[in-house]
Amino acid sequence: MSHGQYDRLVSLRRDLHRHPEPAWREFRTTSRIVDELESIGVDTLLVGSDLIDADSRMGVPDDEEIDRWYEAARDAGAREDVLDQTAGGVTGVLAVIQQGEGPTIGLRVDIDGLPRSESTDENHTPVAEGFRSETDAMHACGHDAHTTYGLGVIESIVESDFEGTLKVVFQPAEEVIGGGKAIAESGQLDDCDHLLAAHVGLDHPTGEIVAGIDGFLAVHHFEATFTGEPAHAGAQPSKGDNAVQALAAAVQNLYAIPRHEDGATRVNPGVIEGGSATNIIPETARLEGEVRGETTELKAYMQERAMRVIESAAEMHGCTVDIESVGDAPSARSDDEIVEIVSDVASDTDGVETVLDRDSLGGSEDATYLMQRVQDNGGTAAYIGVGTDHPGGHHTATFDVDETSLPIGVDVLSETIQRLANE
Amino acid sequence: MSHGQYDRLVSLRRDLHRHPEPAWREFRTTSRIVDELESIGVDTLLVGSDLIDADSRMGVPDDEEIDRWYEAARDAGAREDVLDQTAGGVTGVLAVIQQGEGPTIGLRVDIDGLPRSESTDENHTPVAEGFRSETDAMHACGHDAHTTYGLGVIESIVESDFEGTLKVVFQPAEEVIGGGKAIAESGQLDDCDHLLAAHVGLDHPTGEIVAGIDGFLAVHHFEATFTGEPAHAGAQPSKGDNAVQALAAAVQNLYAIPRHEDGATRVNPGVIEGGSATNIIPETARLEGEVRGETTELKAYMQERAMRVIESAAEMHGCTVDIESVGDAPSARSDDEIVEIVSDVASDTDGVETVLDRDSLGGSEDATYLMQRVQDNGGTAAYIGVGTDHPGGHHTATFDVDETSLPIGVDVLSETIQRLANE
Amino acid sequence: MSHGQYDRLVSLRRDLHRHPEPAWREFRTTSRIVDELESIGVDTLLVGSDLIDADSRMGVPDDEEIDRWYEAARDAGAREDVLDQTAGGVTGVLAVIQQGEGPTIGLRVDIDGLPRSESTDENHTPVAEGFRSETDAMHACGHDAHTTYGLGVIESIVESDFEGTLKVVFQPAEEVIGGGKAIAESGQLDDCDHLLAAHVGLDHPTGEIVAGIDGFLAVHHFEATFTGEPAHAGAQPSKGDNAVQALAAAVQNLYAIPRHEDGATRVNPGVIEGGSATNIIPETARLEGEVRGETTELKAYMQERAMRVIESAAEMHGCTVDIESVGDAPSARSDDEIVEIVSDVASDTDGVETVLDRDSLGGSEDATYLMQRVQDNGGTAAYIGVGTDHPGGHHTATFDVDETSLPIGVDVLSETIQRLANE
Amino acid sequence: MSHGQYDRLVSLRRDLHRHPEPAWREFRTTSRIVDELESIGVDTLLVGSDLIDADSRMGVPDDEEIDRWYEAARDAGAREDVLDQTAGGVTGVLAVIQQGEGPTIGLRVDIDGLPRSESTDENHTPVAEGFRSETDAMHACGHDAHTTYGLGVIESIVESDFEGTLKVVFQPAEEVIGGGKAIAESGQLDDCDHLLAAHVGLDHPTGEIVAGIDGFLAVHHFEATFTGEPAHAGAQPSKGDNAVQALAAAVQNLYAIPRHEDGATRVNPGVIEGGSATNIIPETARLEGEVRGETTELKAYMQERAMRVIESAAEMHGCTVDIESVGDAPSARSDDEIVEIVSDVASDTDGVETVLDRDSLGGSEDATYLMQRVQDNGGTAAYIGVGTDHPGGHHTATFDVDETSLPIGVDVLSETIQRLANE
Repeated sequence: MSHGQYDRLVSLRRDLHRHPEPAWREFRTTSRIVDELESIGVDTLLVGSDLIDADSRMGVPDDEEIDRWYEAARDAGAREDVLDQTAGGVTGVLAVIQQGEGPTIGLRVDIDGLPRSESTDENHTPVAEGFRSETDAMHACGHDAHTTYGLGVIESIVESDFEGTLKVVFQPAEEVIGGGKAIAESGQLDDCDHLLAAHVGLDHPTGEIVAGIDGFLAVHHFEATFTGEPAHAGAQPSKGDNAVQALAAAVQNLYAIPRHEDGATRVNPGVIEGGSATNIIPETARLEGEVRGETTELKAYMQERAMRVIESAAEMHGCTVDIESVGDAPSARSDDEIVEIVSDVASDTDGVETVLDRDSLGGSEDATYLMQRVQDNGGTAAYIGVGTDHPGGHHTATFDVDETSLPIGVDVLSETIQRLANE
Repeated sequence: MSHGQYDRLVSLRRDLHRHPEPAWREFRTTSRIVDELESIGVDTLLVGSDLIDADSRMGVPDDEEIDRWYEAARDAGAREDVLDQTAGGVTGVLAVIQQGEGPTIGLRVDIDGLPRSESTDENHTPVAEGFRSETDAMHACGHDAHTTYGLGVIESIVESDFEGTLKVVFQPAEEVIGGGKAIAESGQLDDCDHLLAAHVGLDHPTGEIVAGIDGFLAVHHFEATFTGEPAHAGAQPSKGDNAVQALAAAVQNLYAIPRHEDGATRVNPGVIEGGSATNIIPETARLEGEVRGETTELKAYMQERAMRVIESAAEMHGCTVDIESVGDAPSARSDDEIVEIVSDVASDTDGVETVLDRDSLGGSEDATYLMQRVQDNGGTAAYIGVGTDHPGGHHTATFDVDETSLPIGVDVLSETIQRLANE
Repeated sequence: MSHGQYDRLVSLRRDLHRHPEPAWREFRTTSRIVDELESIGVDTLLVGSDLIDADSRMGVPDDEEIDRWYEAARDAGAREDVLDQTAGGVTGVLAVIQQGEGPTIGLRVDIDGLPRSESTDENHTPVAEGFRSETDAMHACGHDAHTTYGLGVIESIVESDFEGTLKVVFQPAEEVIGGGKAIAESGQLDDCDHLLAAHVGLDHPTGEIVAGIDGFLAVHHFEATFTGEPAHAGAQPSKGDNAVQALAAAVQNLYAIPRHEDGATRVNPGVIEGGSATNIIPETARLEGEVRGETTELKAYMQERAMRVIESAAEMHGCTVDIESVGDAPSARSDDEIVEIVSDVASDTDGVETVLDRDSLGGSEDATYLMQRVQDNGGTAAYIGVGTDHPGGHHTATFDVDETSLPIGVDVLSETIQRLANE
Repeated sequence: MSHGQYDRLVSLRRDLHRHPEPAWREFRTTSRIVDELESIGVDTLLVGSDLIDADSRMGVPDDEEIDRWYEAARDAGAREDVLDQTAGGVTGVLAVIQQGEGPTIGLRVDIDGLPRSESTDENHTPVAEGFRSETDAMHACGHDAHTTYGLGVIESIVESDFEGTLKVVFQPAEEVIGGGKAIAESGQLDDCDHLLAAHVGLDHPTGEIVAGIDGFLAVHHFEATFTGEPAHAGAQPSKGDNAVQALAAAVQNLYAIPRHEDGATRVNPGVIEGGSATNIIPETARLEGEVRGETTELKAYMQERAMRVIESAAEMHGCTVDIESVGDAPSARSDDEIVEIVSDVASDTDGVETVLDRDSLGGSEDATYLMQRVQDNGGTAAYIGVGTDHPGGHHTATFDVDETSLPIGVDVLSETIQRLANE
């Protein structure tokens, strides 16, 4: 990669890092991607609802929250045409490159940040070098690097003798496991012969490539709202039906769902809130949680038990409960055919020192929806790990990527795409 | 009472009802009271920190919340001089009338609203007659009527041949049990020979007076913040120390504190929140709660057990917990001497049909701090119930007072004050 | 009372104390009572099923347990005719004295011990003086004294000029709240004009009499058996439905049933057992518990909530639950007419120093079934407290009665019966 | 195998099946084994404390329970000399065969039954053919077959040209994970070059052999006794410290110990009991439980968290808790060297249709103590699975072995021993 391209990628990544936006609120991010794509020049460029099946979105925040970020994006210079196309929180971009005859290859990168604040530590590089987040959110999982991969790969492919069709999806809302299904359901990737996805970091150092990541935990996100009956806690405690008691019983018993002998399972009622005042028996309480399983079946086991626990806890305390699905992803597996190619490509890539054939994610990812879709249509898919030295862990305040790993990611992906096209 | 005075009281009460402000945010309310007092003419008028021991305030909201109401009060026409005197949430007024030689008699009324929204039902009188709350808060416990009593009593006493000193306290932050102590600690009522307080409603109909209310539950409000260790819920569940698990264990076991054979006790962890995302093991969780007891000893029993439950729940899940007191009130009892006078006065008051000597509140009130202070100094105190037909229960969206009960409250209080002065 | 009668009473009480038998297992006790009654001479003597409506018994232990005590009673010298009449655990005696014309007056005393072992402390009088319990059970609530009252009263009345009918019921199974209903349902007390019952101790010292005890908590005993699905805890944890988890959820949430503003309530899941081995997901778990209320309505409130908690806890963990009633008693109140007589009598009784008109029990008693029955039939009833210095609390290992209080109890009861007959 | 030997083995297995005895109570079983060994003739025969380090026993029942089985064994014809040697529950046998020069090879079989009753279903073979259990216990895990293997192997080896030393351990108390350590600590197997152990069934059908079983979950058994303060549940609920509340909080939170990302973990508080009467605040409660981990480290993680939960639950409810270890076993792995030999041998054995090289147990076994001991001393070890059609699952009432699999087990073990000796 040329110094010029490297500098552009770094500058682009830092700009994205300064303006992180959480799930379904990537307005300014979408605008910036469109800018870059227009500057590179692509054959087709779809934005927002042209790419997203809006009804299949999960984890969409409320209107007020969307509006807040929408206005902030406008203030931060987002283009009006892009704002129009993404209104209501239908974000994301699909760029298509067509060069001669050849297979259709998809690349999926995710673009959203996390709703957490970034470290203010002077030793944290984004602070030291002036590109710390300017919003309430933070790119604490490297999606700024992923977005940069997507744009870098397009730039490389356009300049190459690649023959075929490349579809790069800039997917919103991965962090809430809410965007993958919406893109899968749009059908835009149904003609792909192959699909690649990638993730930076994951405790692999700079110079290490994992040719095929597996061990995606299938996941289900839900939101349960308990409704009871309020009453004055001093004067009429017996008249209330206590939503916080129901929630507490649910939390305790959710964590206690039996382990499963067939493999790893998880449960985390990660966000709770309830009640309005100390002297009122709480009328409502809300619990956002998730269950996971090493397989889609294990996720289903956890989900079934969790729903039973929640419903019984409500009933136990005379409450009703409304449970909504707000995110979901299946398990998936990288195909051997691509993993071999990636492994081969990586061995020859500048800056790569170690290539692992396979590693396990131990987490969830809604790229699996897209991988499964392509695989169900007879194609192949792989999820590639791009090592980077990262000082803080993923999702923590001091997460950061080593920018010297950016060209490695771009090169491995571009070269793999070309090899797939030539097969 | 003249038609003119009645109309003024109703109009005043409706204005207060339209502009409810919660604890320590009664800026516009304080301003309106000052306006009225200046119009009546009083001998001394203390506002905010002249009256309040700011360090003894409990349940003070955060700066952002105070600022929001401060600005809203300004927008709603609060006087700049009053805003200056109450800056930072030091609200409330003390008015003093001195007429000749005689005992010093205190009257305490409370002025804060509740942080809940008011009904929009067409049949709800404030809706039908156009004085529904214009803020997020609501006068759902009749403190608009209490404030009106205070002003009506001053008006009556000023025009009477009362001889002595009358000190009327317009107390903020009763709903969070946070204002009584701050006024007691200021010492402003230490010279009172007698103290009266009053409450409207309490399920007594218009025309009924309770000469002495007892059965105040002593109460303690606390806020517990659990801190654990975050971790990715999918990839590293064992690395987290889960603050929401600690909170759920605490909630379940708080409600399970054994009943006490010596009398009524209460417990309500009424407000909870915790966690940041479904895929992160929750690092923090916060619980606001209260315990009560029929006596100060029973409250202490509940408080001791509650603290043990909370601390053990934290330890059980590897968390730390920080517990803060945010409100407190002792139990109290109305003195027979005053109760007899009130009973006598009430029997002769226009509009009064039934007089009960004693009744039990079954709730908490921080007027008890002031009653106890005056009693400890050798004075006497009583808490008077003024019946009113109220369609909805206290603290509910459809609470409202029957305005024909307003003059009854004013008359009983004024006449009692005069009788006490003449003894 | 003569020295001779006093010595007989003490000797009788010590013999009973040495042979305590728990509920529905009072075979040797029944035999000893029959011996005494035959020695005194009574007009009618009913034993076991002649007196007890066997189907209305509650809290009956299983056959094996009954058999064990039955054989032990035989070994301890119980009469074969009495063993025949009480076979299957239908214990208890009714003695009737008829002397001339007059009202029918009932006296109910209870005869069962508690399933707990007695102290072996050298300072414990029964140890020091050689009458410590010889069984696994213990007279830790003074029913040995009550039985002695019954026999002493009969002895006194027979020798007096009493005119009327006296029916003394020696009731089994008070400790499990299981015998009162069975006697009430037999109808044997339906012709009583007045009914007396008495209890020793209750924290009143020797020389103190409570003329009328009230504040009986209505009570309901239940037994819940959870049934799930066993599975190997190591190899197939997900295949089990865990009855111990269901029970633990039930226990936690039973203790957390909200307090009631109308008065005292109680809940105690006092006995639990479950599971068969550490490596098997527990298939069954059993919980014996009770709820109480200051009124029968409050008991009903607790019972309804408790059943909901138990059923939801079962459902939450995929278990079924079978709930059985094993004991029940209503609330009751001593009638003023008798209380006045008792108060009067007590003031004139040797050894009585203090007479309290009324006091509150704060516990439960199934004498209330009999009191209510007599009251419903137009009669009057009272429950009398006979003070005694007792070193340990009721139900503890060092409980004991001060035997100098025995004649006080006998005298107050006998004299009250005579006064009632003469009215 | 000859028809004669087969018939003897079946007859022996059925006799053992009729007389199952649980852990540390295998008195009659030990006696029967000694009879057989004397009949075969062995070089050394150690019984009870000659073989067992009595202080290292875990899960030993109380004296009364041991006595009960001791007397029952005497009634069932156990030899007095064996009863003397096993008094106090020090059961088990070691038989040594020495034939010429060669390596020392150990074979460990376990001999205890489970404390559960056997099915009475007419279709259950032991019922149909008249060898159903005559005790409260049941051979529901096939240790009757294992004992038969041990005796059959000795018979075969004695008649073979085997050269070396064979040590067959008939180990007690496997079901409570309590015997393995006691034998390891005795040092009797420290000179073994190789060690074999075997298990029947495990869902493998007759004709299937697993050459090396792995996936032993390390396990820790514990017993926690909570002690609080009793009080009358009606009269003095606040005076009690409730051991059942503490236990319920512990159970709920034990099941909720977070899953571990490094592998499988388990927890099961499988046996609970507590309280004495419904009207007494429970003074004591007892919980027997276990934790497991796929590795010894994961077991340690679970154990540490479990202890913290239990201790905090006690503290939360003002109780103390005493925690005792009652069983423990590490993880282990079968060595490739032996697994290959077993695989080879099995392929050539009559009746074997399928040979699996490896399979995972998913449960725990204290043979691992012995395997680890031999491996730590430089030897090799393997755990062999012998398939059998079994109608009910392990530990259920209808478990039974297909007796045609008995000679397969004996043959595979004998031949493997000879091959190991010849290497």
